[in-house]
Amino acid sequence: MNVQNQVKEARQAAYRMAVARVETRNAVIRGMASLLAERQADILAANATDASRATEAGLGQSVYKRLVLSERKLGVMIDSLESVARLPDPLGAEEVRRELDAGLVLSRVRVPIGVVGVIFESRPDALVQIASLGIKSGNAVILKGGSEALESNRVLHALFVEAVAAVDDSLSGALQLVETREDISAVLELDDDIDLMIPRGSNELVRYIQQHTRIPVLGHADGICHVYIHPDAEPAMATAVVRDSKMQYPAVCNAVETLLVHADAIEMLHAIVEALSGVELRGCARTREVVPMAEATDEDWTTEYNDLVLSIRVVDSPEEAIAHINRYGSRHTDAIVTASSDAAARFMREVDSSSVLWNASTRFADGFRYGLGAEVGISTGKVHARGPVGLEGLTTTQYRVTGNGHIVDDYAEGRKQFTHRTLKEQSGS
Amino acid sequence: MNVQNQVKEARQAAYRMAVARVETRNAVIRGMASLLAERQADILAANATDASRATEAGLGQSVYKRLVLSERKLGVMIDSLESVARLPDPLGAEEVRRELDAGLVLSRVRVPIGVVGVIFESRPDALVQIASLGIKSGNAVILKGGSEALESNRVLHALFVEAVAAVDDSLSGALQLVETREDISAVLELDDDIDLMIPRGSNELVRYIQQHTRIPVLGHADGICHVYIHPDAEPAMATAVVRDSKMQYPAVCNAVETLLVHADAIEMLHAIVEALSGVELRGCARTREVVPMAEATDEDWTTEYNDLVLSIRVVDSPEEAIAHINRYGSRHTDAIVTASSDAAARFMREVDSSSVLWNASTRFADGFRYGLGAEVGISTGKVHARGPVGLEGLTTTQYRVTGNGHIVDDYAEGRKQFTHRTLKEQSGS
Repeated sequence: MNVQNQVKEARQAAYRMAVARVETRNAVIRGMASLLAERQADILAANATDASRATEAGLGQSVYKRLVLSERKLGVMIDSLESVARLPDPLGAEEVRRELDAGLVLSRVRVPIGVVGVIFESRPDALVQIASLGIKSGNAVILKGGSEALESNRVLHALFVEAVAAVDDSLSGALQLVETREDISAVLELDDDIDLMIPRGSNELVRYIQQHTRIPVLGHADGICHVYIHPDAEPAMATAVVRDSKMQYPAVCNAVETLLVHADAIEMLHAIVEALSGVELRGCARTREVVPMAEATDEDWTTEYNDLVLSIRVVDSPEEAIAHINRYGSRHTDAIVTASSDAAARFMREVDSSSVLWNASTRFADGFRYGLGAEVGISTGKVHARGPVGLEGLTTTQYRVTGNGHIVDDYAEGRKQFTHRTLKEQSGS
Repeated sequence: MNVQNQVKEARQAAYRMAVARVETRNAVIRGMASLLAERQADILAANATDASRATEAGLGQSVYKRLVLSERKLGVMIDSLESVARLPDPLGAEEVRRELDAGLVLSRVRVPIGVVGVIFESRPDALVQIASLGIKSGNAVILKGGSEALESNRVLHALFVEAVAAVDDSLSGALQLVETREDISAVLELDDDIDLMIPRGSNELVRYIQQHTRIPVLGHADGICHVYIHPDAEPAMATAVVRDSKMQYPAVCNAVETLLVHADAIEMLHAIVEALSGVELRGCARTREVVPMAEATDEDWTTEYNDLVLSIRVVDSPEEAIAHINRYGSRHTDAIVTASSDAAARFMREVDSSSVLWNASTRFADGFRYGLGAEVGISTGKVHARGPVGLEGLTTTQYRVTGNGHIVDDYAEGRKQFTHRTLKEQSGS
């Protein structure tokens, strides 16, 4: 089937998904979990094919580690499906109810987005997470995984379509797998039928998608995160937060890339540097007066290393730290270490990033750790969803008005007046 | 000043707007209202220049009527500023608070988007509405009005900058006026410094903007709205709703363009057609058997007339009506007239539009009528904001985490467990 027809099938399935009961959606997800357990041998065999091709192609160790499945990893995937099935229903909640006039009532309810395209990296568990979040939120999903996981993705997709069809055959178009770059180019043209694209993976991928489609794109192009050390920071805490933010998993977007140290806290650098053993350091002139290291250039402030490299800059004030972050950062995740709640409050208000942390590692900025259950990605854009995106980011709203033959002319001509009486409203709505 | 520098000034002002107290923002809006009253003569003089140029240029009556100001229209503008000042603060509300672990607390708060670009039609009151909503929501706004209102917009913009500076000079870059097409082309390139574009006006304008920028765009390209008459509809109500939806103000996006009539309700067409005197009708074959009229072609189902024209189609079931709307409509606003709550509930769930109405005119789909206070536009996109967009659509969220030296490694290594205890949560979050 060509991509245009796959997307049309997804659109039709999306209409049916949107009205499927939560029991139906959860039954599909539990069915997916059962099939993962039943067909473990098939999945591992397909994955072994991918793995041996990866070895032949000489792929790096880190790609290989993410690609290869094991019984233990399958067990984690099954657990994650069960936990998505247990999450509360993201659909149907009435966020606003307002009497517009006697007998004329407005409500705003949560509904699915429709058809969502997700392009993801070579981790078979990414397909499992994305497909289950898509089903739970009542959407149809176009799935495009990394080519290294081709065989694994085929088997997983086929199982999941089987799980959907076992519950309700009319929903089985809701998960569509596309495989080639040409398919993605065709998908990016279909802005009438796809409501949202979520590219996960390299910055280059995200930028490419943003530049080649009129479909709204949710994602983050860079993760240039900062930790700022205020003079009153507890030195051991500053060291622990910097070390964790840099070293706990340096290859990911929420790892710190630049450390900003107040001039009056500069002596803390000795202990911090000692704790960062194995990390390549690049400092500004004032940093290098205290601890010898390579020189940081302007380019370092805008570089996402994704590696054991850290740039360090001395600043004279919190304002200078905030200005540095807003100028050079990527509006992703930034932390302050301080004993002062005033300094922290100001930092959190003025830093223009999706997550700001006080006395905690930048590595906490993640859907699972934030308690969203799982995430489809992290958004550094400011519209729709910002920061780690879970089920809520896969939903939108619909206004529903119930009247009794009400017409606007009565209000335009002054025969009737609106009452605009709030019956239910969320804060912030 | 060139556009690049104007946008940089807006970005700097946006950081300060984001932390301005609501009292400050409201004082600016009340200052705008006072200056409108004080400088009425200047405004009317500038508007008279625009008006005489419009007459020379032979602009149509409807553009002219929207363009020309009067003391009465200025009074309405002053009232609308006062009402925006009275709206609740859209910023700072804590939507979510969650304990991640002992001493580690996540909150999600409403913050401004940052720098918003709005392109609007030749109505000077649009500048007033957009500028005041932008200030109230803590954003900086790049304003581009219709060229016919050039002199009026210059005077209004200068007054509003004066009002901002009178309250806090450091905020005065928050309102930037750009005037030419070349300026807009330059603005559309600045995707690093502008967070959201809102084009209002013709479908061609909205499509042009969507196609020429990587900045997220909020708007609607079409307003192809429907009314569906179910067999059990009360005939007088059906007639009144159709008449109001078509005739109350046919030039706007929420006016109905296609009437769908169930075959068993076809006799109601006589009274409906009689009530639509002055409307050009185009019907399907079965419609024309009942009432003679011009023939509707497939093109009619996808045309936004914005005029006293209505296409009519007979359908055999509510499913057929819903399928017609989802296929040919523009996901804007659609209504059903029925006595059956089941039929209404199904219609409202299955029609994939930003507003759905039961026994009420499509013309109600509007920010003021929905009680949002005012609107910056109506969105038919499904991300960020959908339907009429008021202050909430000009805000986004920020995650804030407060810890006590918490590091991720403790959780990754199993020394600590997340508690994920909800302290406060909106439904749907």
